Amino acid sequence: MKRYEIYPLRVYDSLRGRKERFIPIERGCVGLYVCGPTVYSPVHLGNVRSFISYDLIYRYLNHLGYSVCYVRNITDVGHLERDADGGEDKLAKKARLERLTPMRLAQRYTVDLHRILQKFNNRAPDIEPMATGHIPEQIEAVERLLGKGLAYEVNGSVYFDVKKYDETHSYGELSRRSIDELITQSRDLQGTAEKRNPQDFALWKRASPQHIMRWKSPWATGFPGWHLECTVMSTKYLGLPFDMHGGGMDLKFPHHECEIAQTKGAYGKVPANYWLHANMLTLRGQKMSKSTGNTVLPNDLIRGTNPFFKSGFHPSAIRFFMMQAHYRSVLDLSDEAMRGAEKGYFKLMYAYKALQNARSGKRSDFDVQSWVDESYGALSDDFNTPVLIAKLFEAVHWANQIKAGFASLREADLHLLREKFHTFSFEILGLQPVEAEGNADKLSAVISLLVELRAEARADKNWARADQIRERLAALGIQLRDGREGTRFSLEN
Amino acid sequence: MKRYEIYPLRVYDSLRGRKERFIPIERGCVGLYVCGPTVYSPVHLGNVRSFISYDLIYRYLNHLGYSVCYVRNITDVGHLERDADGGEDKLAKKARLERLTPMRLAQRYTVDLHRILQKFNNRAPDIEPMATGHIPEQIEAVERLLGKGLAYEVNGSVYFDVKKYDETHSYGELSRRSIDELITQSRDLQGTAEKRNPQDFALWKRASPQHIMRWKSPWATGFPGWHLECTVMSTKYLGLPFDMHGGGMDLKFPHHECEIAQTKGAYGKVPANYWLHANMLTLRGQKMSKSTGNTVLPNDLIRGTNPFFKSGFHPSAIRFFMMQAHYRSVLDLSDEAMRGAEKGYFKLMYAYKALQNARSGKRSDFDVQSWVDESYGALSDDFNTPVLIAKLFEAVHWANQIKAGFASLREADLHLLREKFHTFSFEILGLQPVEAEGNADKLSAVISLLVELRAEARADKNWARADQIRERLAALGIQLRDGREGTRFSLEN
Repeated sequence: MKRYEIYPLRVYDSLRGRKERFIPIERGCVGLYVCGPTVYSPVHLGNVRSFISYDLIYRYLNHLGYSVCYVRNITDVGHLERDADGGEDKLAKKARLERLTPMRLAQRYTVDLHRILQKFNNRAPDIEPMATGHIPEQIEAVERLLGKGLAYEVNGSVYFDVKKYDETHSYGELSRRSIDELITQSRDLQGTAEKRNPQDFALWKRASPQHIMRWKSPWATGFPGWHLECTVMSTKYLGLPFDMHGGGMDLKFPHHECEIAQTKGAYGKVPANYWLHANMLTLRGQKMSKSTGNTVLPNDLIRGTNPFFKSGFHPSAIRFFMMQAHYRSVLDLSDEAMRGAEKGYFKLMYAYKALQNARSGKRSDFDVQSWVDESYGALSDDFNTPVLIAKLFEAVHWANQIKAGFASLREADLHLLREKFHTFSFEILGLQPVEAEGNADKLSAVISLLVELRAEARADKNWARADQIRERLAALGIQLRDGREGTRFSLEN
Repeated sequence: MKRYEIYPLRVYDSLRGRKERFIPIERGCVGLYVCGPTVYSPVHLGNVRSFISYDLIYRYLNHLGYSVCYVRNITDVGHLERDADGGEDKLAKKARLERLTPMRLAQRYTVDLHRILQKFNNRAPDIEPMATGHIPEQIEAVERLLGKGLAYEVNGSVYFDVKKYDETHSYGELSRRSIDELITQSRDLQGTAEKRNPQDFALWKRASPQHIMRWKSPWATGFPGWHLECTVMSTKYLGLPFDMHGGGMDLKFPHHECEIAQTKGAYGKVPANYWLHANMLTLRGQKMSKSTGNTVLPNDLIRGTNPFFKSGFHPSAIRFFMMQAHYRSVLDLSDEAMRGAEKGYFKLMYAYKALQNARSGKRSDFDVQSWVDESYGALSDDFNTPVLIAKLFEAVHWANQIKAGFASLREADLHLLREKFHTFSFEILGLQPVEAEGNADKLSAVISLLVELRAEARADKNWARADQIRERLAALGIQLRDGREGTRFSLEN
C-alpha cells in the first residue's frame, strides 16, 4: 500500500475555493507547475518563501510515493512593466541601465537564484524551462487563439480579446471578479491605444527598434506576452490538463486568470485540476517594498547585514521560521520572530541528538504510532506544517523526558520515533542539522575534546587553564554553558 | 594605462597554427565562446579540466582589464551518436533508458554540472545559452545555407554539402585535412543512405515518431544538427566575427571544422579570430573511457571514492594540479601526481600565510618588480600557468627565507609581493585558501588551541595528556607533525 493511500492528501484549490481530496490524473503520478522568478533583479525573501513553500509540497508529494514531475519556469523575457502593455520589457530596460544585455542579466540572476535556493536546501525542480527557449511554441499558441477569433492583431502586436472570450466563457473565475469590475479597475492602468478594451492583454508585442530581445513572427518581429509562456511550458511538459498549478498569491490576478483564459480559449480546457497559491511574507507588519526600503535580501538575513536584524541566522533557522506558518497564511518577519524561530530550530536539533543517544526501556509512555499518524494527518491536510511542528514539539518533550530518565520507550517505538523525527525534520521540512556545513562535524568533535580538557583542568583545580579554554573559545564565537548535564557549547553563525 | 597594454597577450591560434599577438575587435572588449557540455551524463574530470582551463583564461582576460563576455552553451539536444547522422539523439536515448524525459535529464545533469564547477571555484559564464532555446535561429541558418546552395533536403532532413562548399572554400583548414582524406576516413562511419557524400553532415533531422524532442520546420518536424547550435549561439550573442572560440581538442574535428564551414558558407566569414583548444586529461597514462572503467568522476576524486586513489583531495588541490600543466598539453592524472600537487598547493598556502605575517626590513634581497613582470609575462604568453607556478615557488622560497630571518624585503616590496601572490594564486589561478569552506577558519583556530595545550602538557611532562590530544585529533583525520618550528597540523579531506 502506498503512503498516499494510507494518508490521502487534501489540498485547497483556489478555483473551487475549498479543500478537496487530491485525485491525480495518472495513478501515482503528479505533474506540478509553479510560476518561477523573473530574473531581472536579486530574488528577495518573499520570493524565497514562495519557492520554499513549493519545495515542501514537492518533498511531501515525493515522500507520499508519488512520481512527481516538478516544472518551475524562469521568466527571462516578456514580463511587461506595470502588468500593462504600454510598458517596456523589464529585462531589456534593466539591461540598458546596467549596460548588460538581457541574456547576461538573466544569467546573473539565475545563477544568484540557484545559489540562494541551494542554501535553503531547496531541491532543484525536475525541469526549469526558460521563456526564451519556447518562442516557436508561443507563436503557435498565438496562431491558435487568432484562429479561434479570441485574439486580434494591431500593428504587428496581438492581443487577447477578453470581452469576446467572456461571451462564451467566464473571465475572472479564479479571482472571483466580473468582467465589468475589471473594466472599472483597469481604467487607471495605462493601456495602449491599440487595445479594443482596457482589460485585453498582449500575446505578442512588436519590438521597438531599440528592443534587444526579438524574434520573427507571422506578425511583427517582437516578443511574447508574459502570460503566454506559462500556458505553453506547463502543458508542453505536463500535458493538458495537468495536476497542480502553483504560484504566489499575487499571481492569481491577472497572471493565472489570463493563463486559464488562454488555455480554455485555445484548447477548451482549464490547464490544471488544482490551483495552489502561496501567501506573502511581510516585514515588521508591512508589505515588503523596494521603494520604501522595507525589504530584506536572503543573504543579508543569513549574514546579519540587514539593519532590521541584530544578527544573522542559519538558513535552516530561516526555513524553520517559514515552516511555522501555513503556506496559505501571511507570515510576518521580524527580529523577535526570527529569534524565536531560531530557538525552536535549535531545540528541535538538540532533541534529535538526544533521541539518537537515548536508550530503550521496558515500557512505552508515549503512543508513537498515533503521533506518526497525526503528523502525517497534518501534512496530508493541505500541507499543514504548523500542526506538524506542534507534533514535533510533542516529540521534543518526550525526547527530553526520556533523556532525563522520566519516561521510557520500547525499542520498536524508539526506533519509529527516531526514524519519523528524522523524516519530518530533514526529508520533508527540509531542515539541515546544525553541523551540516563544511567541517562543522570535525569542529564539534574538536570542541568536545577541549570541553573535556577543560573539565579535567577544573577537576585538577587548574582554574587558570579552564578559564583560558573558555575565553579562547568565546573569542572564536563558541560559547560554553555549564549545566547539570555537563557543558554544552553553541556556535554563533 | 591598461594592464593589457603593459603585458600584451599572445595566444596560440589553432587555425593559423602559431602564437599570435591578440588584437580584439573592439578595443578593451573580448567576446569568448566555449563549447559547453552535452548534458546527458555526469560531467567527468576530463570535461572539468577543459572548463577549468577556460575559467583561467576568462579570469586572466578580466584581470588584464578587458570587458569580457564569456558565452558557454549547454547542448541539450541534437548531439547525434557516433558523431554520424544515423544515430539517434543521445539525450532522447538515455532518457528512455532512465524513463525520464529529455528535459528532465538535461536539467539533472545541468544542475550536477553547475554544482561541480562551483566546487572547483569556476566562475559562471556571462551567458549560458541552451540549444533548445535557439530553434528559430537554427532554422533560419538552415534556410540561409539552402539559399546559398550549400545544403540539400532529403526526406525532411537537411544536410550540409561539404563537396560543394569545398569547391569555393577550403574544408578542413582547421584540422589540416584534405577533403579526400576525409572521404577515406569517414567511410567506416555509419552514414545514412540519404547523404550525397559520406562527409556531409546534418543541419536538420526529421524526427522519428518516437523522438520526443521535436519542432516544426519548413522541412519536417525534427531537431537541429549538433554543429549548428554553436554557429547560431556564438554569433547571436557575440557578433560575427567575434574574438575567441574555445573548446576541447577533440572538438577540432568535426565540430569546429563544421562550424567554420557553416559560418563561411552562410555569411562569408570565419566565425572567430582566434581558435583555442584545451588538451585532454589522461588517467594513469591512458585515455579516460567509460567502457574500460579507466575514468574518474570529480566527486569521487574529492571524496576519495575512486579505486585508483588512496584518499580524496581538496578541490583546490585538484585545480592546482591542473594548473601545473599548460592548457594545450596533455595532463596525466594518477595518485602520485595528485599527492605531489597537493603538497605543492599546501606549500603555496603556507607561504601565503608566512607572507602575511612577515615583517618588512631595511633592504630588499629580491627584485619583486621583476618577479611581477615575469609572472605576468608567463600568463600573457598564451596563459602559461606552469611557468607562473614556477614563479610562485620562487616567491615561496623567499617567503620562507624571510620567515626564517635569512632574507628581507622593504615595506613597499613586501606589500607588492603579498598583493601579487594573492592575485596570482586566488584571483587568476582560482585557488581557494585551505580554510575557505564553512567553519574551517574556526576549526584551525580551535586546533591551534589544542596544539598549545599539548605543548603545555609536554612542558609539564604530562605525556599521557599530550598523547591523548594527538590521538584524538588523529582519529578525526587531523595529523600533528612536530618540527623545529613547532607543531603543524594537516587536515584530511
